[in-house]
Amino acid sequence: MDKHVYVGVDVGGTTVKLAFIQGTGEILNKWEIPTDLSNKGNNILKQIADTIAEKMNEYGVPSDSLKAVGVGAPGFIDVTNGSIIEAVNIGWRDFPLKEVLEKETNLPVFIDNDANLAAAGEMWKGAGEGAKNLLAVTLGTGVGGGILAGGEIIHGESGMAGEIGHITSVASGGAPCNCGKTGCLETVASATGIARLGIEAIKEKRYGLLQDTFEKKETLTAKDILDAAKKEDPLANQVVKQAMSYLGFALANLANALNPQTIVIGGGVSKAGIFLVDLLETEFKKYTIPKIGEDTKIRIATLGNDAGVIGAAWLAKQNTNG
Amino acid sequence: MDKHVYVGVDVGGTTVKLAFIQGTGEILNKWEIPTDLSNKGNNILKQIADTIAEKMNEYGVPSDSLKAVGVGAPGFIDVTNGSIIEAVNIGWRDFPLKEVLEKETNLPVFIDNDANLAAAGEMWKGAGEGAKNLLAVTLGTGVGGGILAGGEIIHGESGMAGEIGHITSVASGGAPCNCGKTGCLETVASATGIARLGIEAIKEKRYGLLQDTFEKKETLTAKDILDAAKKEDPLANQVVKQAMSYLGFALANLANALNPQTIVIGGGVSKAGIFLVDLLETEFKKYTIPKIGEDTKIRIATLGNDAGVIGAAWLAKQNTNG
Repeated sequence: MDKHVYVGVDVGGTTVKLAFIQGTGEILNKWEIPTDLSNKGNNILKQIADTIAEKMNEYGVPSDSLKAVGVGAPGFIDVTNGSIIEAVNIGWRDFPLKEVLEKETNLPVFIDNDANLAAAGEMWKGAGEGAKNLLAVTLGTGVGGGILAGGEIIHGESGMAGEIGHITSVASGGAPCNCGKTGCLETVASATGIARLGIEAIKEKRYGLLQDTFEKKETLTAKDILDAAKKEDPLANQVVKQAMSYLGFALANLANALNPQTIVIGGGVSKAGIFLVDLLETEFKKYTIPKIGEDTKIRIATLGNDAGVIGAAWLAKQNTNG
Repeated sequence: MDKHVYVGVDVGGTTVKLAFIQGTGEILNKWEIPTDLSNKGNNILKQIADTIAEKMNEYGVPSDSLKAVGVGAPGFIDVTNGSIIEAVNIGWRDFPLKEVLEKETNLPVFIDNDANLAAAGEMWKGAGEGAKNLLAVTLGTGVGGGILAGGEIIHGESGMAGEIGHITSVASGGAPCNCGKTGCLETVASATGIARLGIEAIKEKRYGLLQDTFEKKETLTAKDILDAAKKEDPLANQVVKQAMSYLGFALANLANALNPQTIVIGGGVSKAGIFLVDLLETEFKKYTIPKIGEDTKIRIATLGNDAGVIGAAWLAKQNTNG
């Protein structure tokens, strides 16, 4: 059995999440520090090294048990040399993360994209436990994703693989997306996208629960719409069904090509739970090869905010043959 | 340098193609034998072993230079144990191909799906030379495909990955497909699909070159339509553009998720060449993240019927660390 301890680090725009994680994937201790965005993010790695040293002391983790550090970071990453090509939210650009953090911590460091590592975390210890072929999609402010095949993260030619949110779901006349094109899955299945579809619907047909909320708040959130749909409000139901139809179409086509064992749905929108999965599954099966539709499991993510640090520890373990 | 010789075998419903192939991927000798479909395909492996032995003698290939045999077969394959789950065209069902052929040839045998190996062949020595991340799509009677990521074939959970032909391209009201659903890419971008779109178009609007051909033959082939489109016949152009729009949409969404370096287009329809690639590229870029659209190369397959045996030799080499 692997008795080593790995450090999982998940760098976000607001906080850096960290954890000591066993070789079995169990979290021993977890904590977070604010992300220091000053000085183009140049202070962050020193702070990460310091907080690891401090917590080793505090939690009594012997230094010879620590085997490696895994780091998930947002943005484009060159996984072969461990550098950040660009992480707009942090300020990093052509930033040799692996090299610098290895010097600071005196441990081997491995890095990957945060969405990929969240997918790996769910594969290892979450909703995809045991699945070697997994699609993970995160429905938050945007739509993120990660793809694992044969137990490995799919990176693609320049590290852009897994960008499920930018699959074109509305072939013509779709809403513009930040990526530069229109009709992306992100524009219809993210929290923002669902809210937009709901606001469009209520402006067109003013009735039901959504109308009350809209009059009070002058806007709608995805949560308003999902809550109303759960109460069987017809307009809200129609909006959620529309969003799940777009999501089902995109995921079915990926599943037709990739034959995953499990699709894991995470992010804020996924808190609607089994209600959402049932709707999604119906739409998904309309567009899959029958056997793929029957065999592919759709699951709500179970690790929440821990997915990133657990996936980062998986990466560290994976690369040190732990 | 790898001085070994590999045997590439590509089992089809009509012929079995074979070749002696160097570790560099160059074909030394190639030949074919008819596929013996009698006795539920049970005679085929003995015939393969016999023809290999005979040709070793004929071409003077010393037995100690032969390192391994790679076999591509149609249908569903369990690559972990090397057995054919089902190959309808051949008659094999739960057939332990690897085990039997290893006994017959006294060489290590590795097997995979024929479309996957054709993709691997194009990756190794064809249009995708050097690409570790590649999508291959074959536009023939049907639409086949193979996906390679990080230099490895993507198999998916039950070996069904790469079935690009069954991506849903027509979200609603599409034509029925053999797979059991409607609107598959195969129904609109295969030779059969293009012919169907052409016949539908000529029945609706009777004019131009296609009308002449249709009156003479009472039908249209994909070649009729592609030839007329090259001569700038407006109706034929519209049909080809429609087919390439569906294909571009499907491939763009795969590319958005998988970030391949190269997409290789093979099969009979691809003989239309650069004319087709130009049309496809325009449609493809409508649906890709801008950087993916700029970076992804679209190429016509270059190996033709040799792709399968070359890919099979690649598999053999890959698995013997040659």
